[in-house]
Amino acid sequence: MSTEPAAPRFAPRGSTAAIEEGNRLAPKFDADGLLTAVAVDADDGTVLMVAHMNAQALALTIETGQAHYFSRSRQKLWKKGEESGHVQTLVELRVDCDQDAVVMRVRMADLPGGLPGAACHTGHRSCFFRSVPLGAAPTPDLTLTVNEPGKLFDPAAVYAAPKKTDIPHF
Amino acid sequence: MSTEPAAPRFAPRGSTAAIEEGNRLAPKFDADGLLTAVAVDADDGTVLMVAHMNAQALALTIETGQAHYFSRSRQKLWKKGEESGHVQTLVELRVDCDQDAVVMRVRMADLPGGLPGAACHTGHRSCFFRSVPLGAAPTPDLTLTVNEPGKLFDPAAVYAAPKKTDIPHF
Repeated sequence: MSTEPAAPRFAPRGSTAAIEEGNRLAPKFDADGLLTAVAVDADDGTVLMVAHMNAQALALTIETGQAHYFSRSRQKLWKKGEESGHVQTLVELRVDCDQDAVVMRVRMADLPGGLPGAACHTGHRSCFFRSVPLGAAPTPDLTLTVNEPGKLFDPAAVYAAPKKTDIPHF
Repeated sequence: MSTEPAAPRFAPRGSTAAIEEGNRLAPKFDADGLLTAVAVDADDGTVLMVAHMNAQALALTIETGQAHYFSRSRQKLWKKGEESGHVQTLVELRVDCDQDAVVMRVRMADLPGGLPGAACHTGHRSCFFRSVPLGAAPTPDLTLTVNEPGKLFDPAAVYAAPKKTDIPHF
């Protein structure tokens, strides 16, 4: 488990102009104390995962340069890779106009055998491994297409206790 | 305003395995009826914006191939570009493992004069036009860096009533 810093200190929210056009970090956390965090591959731009951060997760991400999240299902701070080894090292962190979302350009640790790192607990490189057909109103029979070649790792071999509640759940 | 379809019809949520590994679209909307939507440039992968969709916005996006969102601040369905003209046409729509987030690879309509389309209501191409320095715990004095060359359009000239409540607010 990561060491916990002192209570995170961000700038006050201030005016809309200051938030949207200024140079201070004044993040907007929602009613649950969370903002949205998107991790993309720093090299090819693939969106790897979307998750959430509370103030502490955001502060630890900034301080350590490694992605930390807050798991809504487990209601706990979570350093990506603390169980799987699939750490995400930040190349860049960006914040959006109203400061309720961040984008991290990350590099993931390689898997054993030299396979590229995988962000998804299912074993796929990206959580977004399925696409939705466009052009007609959705129905329950709409069929998703799997876009990736397959799993890069076996979740059962990586997560010590492959129970639903122990698996990082974005 | 877009015409409204019949109530969206998605697959039932089903088992975790079916949701995470199956080929049916069974989106997970949060307590407010929303999921997270990320729009990225289809050509260079730039993350343009992060916003939210309710069931109707997701269904309209799938049916029309143009991005629709639900504005939390305005509490209404919102077709991107309905006021600004900056429509987002989908090249691909992907859904994540637990189906509470989607990524859209989009092309944006060019601006007058041939400038590339801009997603952010501030006039920048991407809402994520500022980066956060890494390596130390955040403080109120932490200084963001603006990464983009500047605004591609003047919001005051694009949005008819540039009041806070009339501006699309992600």
